[in-house]
This record gives sequence, C-alpha cells and structure tokens, in this order.
Amino acid sequence: SNEVKEYENYFGMTLLDRRSDKRTDSNWLNKKQMHPTTVYILFSNLSPLVTLGGGVESSQQPEVKLCRLYHKDVKQYLNQTEEVTLIFLGVELQFHMNLLAACNGRVLKEDEEDGLVAWFALSIDPISAEKFKQTHEDCYFLHPPMPALLQLPEKEAGVVAQARSVLAWHSRYQFCPTCGSATKIEEGGYKKTCLKEGCPSLHGVHNTSYPRVDPVVIMQVIHPDGNHCLLGRQKRFPPGMFTCLAGFVEPGETIEDAVRREVEEEAGVKVGHVQYVCCQPWPMPSSLMIGCLAVAVSTEIKVDKNEIEDARWFTREQVVDVIIKGNHRSFFVPPSRAIAHQLIKHWIGMNANL
Amino acid sequence: SNEVKEYENYFGMTLLDRRSDKRTDSNWLNKKQMHPTTVYILFSNLSPLVTLGGGVESSQQPEVKLCRLYHKDVKQYLNQTEEVTLIFLGVELQFHMNLLAACNGRVLKEDEEDGLVAWFALSIDPISAEKFKQTHEDCYFLHPPMPALLQLPEKEAGVVAQARSVLAWHSRYQFCPTCGSATKIEEGGYKKTCLKEGCPSLHGVHNTSYPRVDPVVIMQVIHPDGNHCLLGRQKRFPPGMFTCLAGFVEPGETIEDAVRREVEEEAGVKVGHVQYVCCQPWPMPSSLMIGCLAVAVSTEIKVDKNEIEDARWFTREQVVDVIIKGNHRSFFVPPSRAIAHQLIKHWIGMNANL
Ligand SMILES: Nc1ncnc2c1ncn2[C@@H]1O[C@H](COP(=O)(O)O)[C@@H](O)[C@H]1O
Ligand SMILES: Nc1ncnc2c1ncn2[C@@H]1O[C@H](COP(=O)(O)O)[C@@H](O)[C@H]1O
Repeated sequence: SNEVKEYENYFGMTLLDRRSDKRTDSNWLNKKQMHPTTVYILFSNLSPLVTLGGGVESSQQPEVKLCRLYHKDVKQYLNQTEEVTLIFLGVELQFHMNLLAACNGRVLKEDEEDGLVAWFALSIDPISAEKFKQTHEDCYFLHPPMPALLQLPEKEAGVVAQARSVLAWHSRYQFCPTCGSATKIEEGGYKKTCLKEGCPSLHGVHNTSYPRVDPVVIMQVIHPDGNHCLLGRQKRFPPGMFTCLAGFVEPGETIEDAVRREVEEEAGVKVGHVQYVCCQPWPMPSSLMIGCLAVAVSTEIKVDKNEIEDARWFTREQVVDVIIKGNHRSFFVPPSRAIAHQLIKHWIGMNANL
Repeated sequence: SNEVKEYENYFGMTLLDRRSDKRTDSNWLNKKQMHPTTVYILFSNLSPLVTLGGGVESSQQPEVKLCRLYHKDVKQYLNQTEEVTLIFLGVELQFHMNLLAACNGRVLKEDEEDGLVAWFALSIDPISAEKFKQTHEDCYFLHPPMPALLQLPEKEAGVVAQARSVLAWHSRYQFCPTCGSATKIEEGGYKKTCLKEGCPSLHGVHNTSYPRVDPVVIMQVIHPDGNHCLLGRQKRFPPGMFTCLAGFVEPGETIEDAVRREVEEEAGVKVGHVQYVCCQPWPMPSSLMIGCLAVAVSTEIKVDKNEIEDARWFTREQVVDVIIKGNHRSFFVPPSRAIAHQLIKHWIGMNANL
C-alpha cells in the first residue's frame, strides 16, 4: 500500500548519497572537511544538536530540526582526535542532481571543485558540548533520544539514524574484540582497524572491522479468523500502550523462523504463513526492524512474563478506533512514524479490502 | 512460488526447537550434558565433523552427514573450559511432538526426566581434533567449509549454520570491545559477559554481549524490458560463474535502499521498485542473506572494478539454458541450494507467467 511505501523510508530515506567510494579518498575527505559549504551535525553522548523551527502556529507542536553547522563553527574540535569522532555521511542528493545537469556529463579535472555538498557527523565530549551550548543559546542536544527523534523531519531522521548507529558502534567497540588491543578509525568512520601487529583480525576481511547492524523482526500477528490481531506490552511501556511483538533474529535463522519463534516464546501462539511488509532502521543503537504480517494457527495466549507483561487479541473495531479515530480511551499504539503503527495500519487496510 | 518457499529454509530450517528459555537454566543444561541421549556435534576450526552416508549408488555423489556423538565420546573435553567452547543448540522437534502427545498435556514434576533430546555443538582445539580423527577413522572435519557445507542434508545444514555462526562469534569476539578485558561465556553459549567490574557493558543491555548477525542484500536485477537480468562476477569466482549482486546493509539504511545503493555502486545501474522474495542464513561467518527482486530503471553498465570484475545483462533464454537445461557452455550460476540460484529461478518462473 502507498501508506506503507511512503513510510518505509522514515528513518532510511535520507537527504544524502552515501558515496562510499569517497571513504577511502582521504585527500577528498580532507578538502571537504575545510570547505565552506560542508555541513556538520554535532552529537554529544549519541544525541544530535537540534533547534526549534520557527514560524509554527501556536496550536501545533513546535518543529525540531537538526542544527546545520559549518567548518568555522567546529574547526576547534577537528584536531582533537582523542575525544572527538568524525563520520563522513555522504553528499547532498539534491545539489548533486543539479550539478550533473549543469555539467551535462562533462568529466571534472583532477583538482577541480566538484560542487558536492558533503555532510559529516561530529561527536564531541560532554564538557565541550556544555561550552558549545552556552555560546549557541537556541540549540540543545536532543536528550533522551526517544521519543524525541520521532519529531525530526523525515529526511533528517535518516541522516541521524545513520550517524547515531555508527557513533554508537564506535563508543561501544573501542577495543579489538579479537585481541583486546586499541584500534584506529579509518575510511571516513566506517572501519576500525586493530593497532596490534599480527592480530588475526588484520588478515582477510572480518566483521570485527565494520559497524554492526542487528536485524530484528517485528510482526503484526493476525488471528485465524482474520478479524483480531495480537498486541503486547512490556513493563517499561507507558500505561495503556500496546504494540506488535518483536525480537532479534538469531544466528542461523531465517526472518520467517524468527517471527515464528518469537511469537511462540513471548505469547505461546503458533504462527504459520509469514509475509514481509516493510522495514525501518532503528538507531537505538543500530537495529534494522524487519516488519512482517504473521498468520496465527493457534489462539490461546500464554504470556512469558520474563519477556513481556501482557498480550491480547484486539478486534478490528478496537484497532480502528485507536488508529483512525484517535480514540485512546481503552489503549493506544506507538506514533505514526514507528514501524509498528504502520504494520497495524497496513493490516486495517488489508482487512477492509476483504 | 513453492520452489522458493521450500528452499527458503535450507540453512534456516532445522531439526531443533532452540528453547532459548533453557539457556539460563544451568541445572537443566548440566543434566542434559550428561544424559545418554544427548547429541553432540563436533567442530574444529569452525568445520563440523562429518562422515559419508552409506548405501549410495556409485553413480551418485556420496552423501555427507554430520557425525552425531554422545556424552561418552566427548566427556574428556567437557571439563577443559580453556580450549573448548560448548553451545546449546536446542532440542529435537520430532521427539518433542511425540512426547507432548504421549503426556497429553500432563505437567512434569520438578525433577522428572522431560524426555527432550538436547543437542550441543562442541568446538575443540586442533591437537585434540587430530587425535580424535585418529581414533575415528570414518570421520573427518569438513574443510574448507564451502562449497562442502552445501552437500549436507537440508535439516542438518540449519543446525550447522546456527552452530558455526555462534562459534565464529566466540572465536573473533574473545575480548570485551568496550574495555578490552577478558570475557566469559554464559547462557548456553549465547551471551558473553565482560569480566571487568565497572565496565559500561555491564550496565543495561548491549549488543556487545550477543552474537552478531550481519544483514546482506542479494538481488536479482531485472532489465526495464523484463527479459534480461543483471549478473556479475568477482575475481575470486571460478571462471565462467556469474551470480546476483550482493552487499552488506549499512547502519541507518532500509533493505530497499541498500539494494539500490549496491546495484548503483557495483554496476552503475539505477533501481526503482524492490521486492523481498526470501532469505537464507549464510554461516560464513554469520550473514543473513535477504533476497530481493529489483527493477532497473537504467540499463548502461559501469562496473566498479574495486568491487566486481564484470557485470552483464543476460537474456531469459541464456538463463533458462543454464538453470533448466543445465547447459553450462557459456556461463554457470551457483548451485541450487544457494539463494542466488533460487532468486534467478524465481525470476524465470515469474517471467514465464507474463
Ligand atoms: N559486516 C561486514 N563484514 C565483512 N565485510 C563488510 C561488512 N560490512 C561491510 N563490509 C565491506 O564489504 C566488503 C566485503 O564484501 P563482500 O565482497 O561482499 O564479502 C569488505 O571489504 C568491507 O568493505
Ligand atoms: N543484539 C542484541 N542486542 C540486545 N539484546 C539482544 C541482542 N540479541 C539478543 N538480545 C536479547 O534480547 C533482549 C532484549 O530484547 P528487547 O527487550 O527486545 O530489547 C536482551 O535481554 C537479550 O537477551
């Protein structure tokens, strides 16, 4: 459905072309770091620096936007390699297109300015962050990141997801897991290399050198009657919130089997057919949420209290009431930018067409 | 299609119910380790111990099977926690079903034998492995693992994928990536905990403690005319082999965007619509191959020689010749148990229906 298609890209869609080929071009990266059009987004403790958008009517929630900084704003941090992490995010897609049109296919000379607007994420230490805020009163670090990240404009959310996931990887993976030695960051922030000569991680290609992406299945489980769906809640959720079941894909497991295992583990319900619907990168810290429809072949619920607090079958009418009519008296679901919301909505649409 | 559905589970389908709830029940795990019906599969250097199946006609390839060992065969290794890694894989699904039927829902008493047949993977050091082989002449370690792993019976392949991915994680992730200290293995092999008091990895839940699964997109790219597909080859492939393009999903990226990025990076071809087809765990060392159909919106090929050696549009007739008629004169594709083969075959089927 269009609803899902549009949404599919909330965290994934981005302003940027990643241009991974430039990650190994340190000459180009260095030039772009100093270029006046280059955009920097600042992070402290995995939270991006944001500001409130102006010109919003008082009745609406104020819009949160990324602060776009320039070389002059951040140059004092760029030489402090100790406390600072720099990630190359890509180049602006929009500008790129215009330029290509303008050049009309002409190949640029070696040292000619290519006109590409590069973006970097820069993570600074808490003390520098505090100082920065004092000199930029209209800016603040979005903390805690959830649910505030869901307020960012769609395209900026994609950039933040990319940056936050890579920064989270650097903050948790500082040492070589193969030998315990220190590491250095390379390739625009997308590679970590062990500093100990002779470490086995240096021979051949190993995933220890690359950022982690954890696949998670999240599923709208449909009752065999087609008119109920299974939603659950964890203890830590706000009271009244229910959502789709979810869980990490394990090694050696397909997406479909992970869905069946998780639903049976958490709710004691058996699932037959599983169908992929859409996915969403979830930067908490670096999951890939894989959204599926799952058709139950049993109906009795046995909640595993270690995993969730409650799980229930909800009728189509109850769900329509909450999602379409916004009537939150009995329960509510995550906001529209969360993949769970879209999976539930997708099911309502499907069901309506029956 | 049925073809794809059946296949989807080659590495993922398994004999076993993972019973992740038992991973924290060390009492149960200890009892099962010593139980005479418990099955052990042995690994050395990430290769499983196998044997040749008997009774096969001389015209066929001999069948490779896992060696199923018992407590008596491996008990000398179980106390050597230094060189040995033990992973709980699950319980036999078949037997479980029978038992449930027999018990007719009766709840077992605290210490009653539950009748479940547990499976463990046991990885031993190279010297012990050499000695073991000398006393068990009909067994050998499957090395190199590829393409030999593709010869295992379907259900055993799933068990090996699970075991090999978890063992590969332990062999590369021996030290805490957050602080560089030593770690200990817990929860039946599915968790690693840092041994240094006060390490930030011990506060809250972090992916540093759990096995890695790397999502990879692999895509059958279809020409805008619907009658050609894009296949490529890497330098290290056997001469004449072509297959689907593939690449790792990056942080903050959707499956669909990863497909578009990789096809454009490797072959210079632009992709519009992307559709998920099926997936396959790939234990080299622990990828999840996510198979998609991708519809090209441009046709000119510009090969990135750093990534692949060649990419070409092949006609439907050429592909039918290779896949259905087995005519390998011009080129060939990976064997039928590889997801690439199934994606290509799926496209032939789809196309035939147009
Ligand atoms: N998790 C990962 N494991 C291995 N290689 C990765 C990973 N993520 C990104 N890469 C990159 O992918 C390349 C290998 O890709 P491939 O040729 O498909 O095996 C490596 O040279 C890396 O640049
Ligand atoms: N990569 C991972 N990151 C975090 N937790 C994981 C991971 N893989 C498995 N787990 C398990 O999933 C639980 C957290 O799941 P959740 O409540 O969905 O965040 C943890 O307690 C772990 O047992």
